[in-house]
Amino acid sequence: MNEPDGSLLSLNTATVRQQWQLPDIIDGCARHGIRGISPWRDQVAAAGLRETAARIRHAGLTVTGYCRGGMFPAMDRAGRRAASDDNKRAVDEALTVAAQCLVLVVGGLPKDAAGRIQSKDIAGAREMVRDGIGELLDYARPAGMPLAIEPLHPMYAADRACVNTLEHANDLCDELGPGLGIAVDAYHVWWDPHLKREIERAGNAKGASRLLAYHICDWLVPTTDLLNDRGMMGDGVIDLPLMRSWMEACGYRGMHEVEIFSATNWWKRDPDEVLATCKLRHASST
Amino acid sequence: MNEPDGSLLSLNTATVRQQWQLPDIIDGCARHGIRGISPWRDQVAAAGLRETAARIRHAGLTVTGYCRGGMFPAMDRAGRRAASDDNKRAVDEALTVAAQCLVLVVGGLPKDAAGRIQSKDIAGAREMVRDGIGELLDYARPAGMPLAIEPLHPMYAADRACVNTLEHANDLCDELGPGLGIAVDAYHVWWDPHLKREIERAGNAKGASRLLAYHICDWLVPTTDLLNDRGMMGDGVIDLPLMRSWMEACGYRGMHEVEIFSATNWWKRDPDEVLATCKLRHASST
Repeated sequence: MNEPDGSLLSLNTATVRQQWQLPDIIDGCARHGIRGISPWRDQVAAAGLRETAARIRHAGLTVTGYCRGGMFPAMDRAGRRAASDDNKRAVDEALTVAAQCLVLVVGGLPKDAAGRIQSKDIAGAREMVRDGIGELLDYARPAGMPLAIEPLHPMYAADRACVNTLEHANDLCDELGPGLGIAVDAYHVWWDPHLKREIERAGNAKGASRLLAYHICDWLVPTTDLLNDRGMMGDGVIDLPLMRSWMEACGYRGMHEVEIFSATNWWKRDPDEVLATCKLRHASST
Repeated sequence: MNEPDGSLLSLNTATVRQQWQLPDIIDGCARHGIRGISPWRDQVAAAGLRETAARIRHAGLTVTGYCRGGMFPAMDRAGRRAASDDNKRAVDEALTVAAQCLVLVVGGLPKDAAGRIQSKDIAGAREMVRDGIGELLDYARPAGMPLAIEPLHPMYAADRACVNTLEHANDLCDELGPGLGIAVDAYHVWWDPHLKREIERAGNAKGASRLLAYHICDWLVPTTDLLNDRGMMGDGVIDLPLMRSWMEACGYRGMHEVEIFSATNWWKRDPDEVLATCKLRHASST
């Protein structure tokens, strides 16, 4: 297989969030020749929205996604309304930083204010997700901000996202129409026996490709924590070159966004070492 | 929904494996009025195969499954042959203890002798699984021992089982024919948007139902360990009464086998308390 184009590397800012504030991360990307970035809302809020937009623009970085909207399910109308309002603000912010899409982590089972799950009705949660995305599209579509559903690994179905397969995300795109696409994260979907089929379905969708973003990292064996034990590309079991070849075969020409949550390893290292390693491994192992 | 029949409770012996040897577990089941059991091979080996079969028979317990065969993928012919030989012995043992099925945990990516994963080719691993089950069926079918594929949660795709959905298991049953069925474990499949459809497909399969076993426990939020943090029924987020209703609606009349791996909670408790709690929760929360 062909090597990946080094200029397509993008950094999801969660990868070094324990070491650096957002301005440091932007500077780090520029310093390491990383040409894309995907920032998180809390980091943007801390650094200032307009200041961040200017700094990213000045550094010449492409914003491959804005993290994140979603979390649609709630037990009552007030909760769903609060999510809706917050998601509209996320669209506005994504426009301000000129993001290519707003990434949606759709939420799991409905929770109370303290974060305790209040219902076991996952089918109902999935209906709330569909309705919530549909309503947000009415706001995002005319504004020109694409929404990207990120299917999360099934181990997050209860508490983070009840859309857990590319097939489900594609079904939602079929139902809800233009302005909606998919963020494909290798960590979440690598195991799926329908992975190739559903990447092709997304890439060849009528009208426009749904492949709005491609996130990479690796699945470690053993994985010691459900949330924060993701691996650097090449350290795990995902056949990333094969997966990229499937994305490219159906027309994906976007960037490759490294997103690594790693409490015990990469978050403890010198962030310049982390960025240098991302570059090396992007070239050698993806 | 109707309450579950208390006489349908079965105990997977892993649930108290840290506290009791197998003879203690058999006695415990009898003492607590639990009428089914599903023992593991290592426990049976420690207690003696014929002694165990006699003790279970004497206690009047139904053996709802024998744990376990599988682990088919290997890097070379010798490794696959070793797995095949071991699986045939597992069939023989399952016959000796009069199990209703041999449960298959099919294995993930091929490993070396030290347990290190040697390949990222999950499609290839799935072919080895298909071929391995096909060969084992030639042995198990004439012997009259049903094989039950247990799809494991996708978080085990790399290291334990690369069959991760009921759909995949049903596809294998379609391809490989009679003598093969499915062990449905709520923990592994509760998140699947096609859960109801694939239970119905298994239950209504032409010839005979594929629903050979039904395992229950619960998915905790948060889950602190990928392997050994399963919950007691009622302590998590799985809608177990709904899932049982789907099993029953397509004809499942078998037992409900409690299988809880819980390093920090249930494995540390008095095993008599664990069994009493299983009985209570089976009645109240499944």
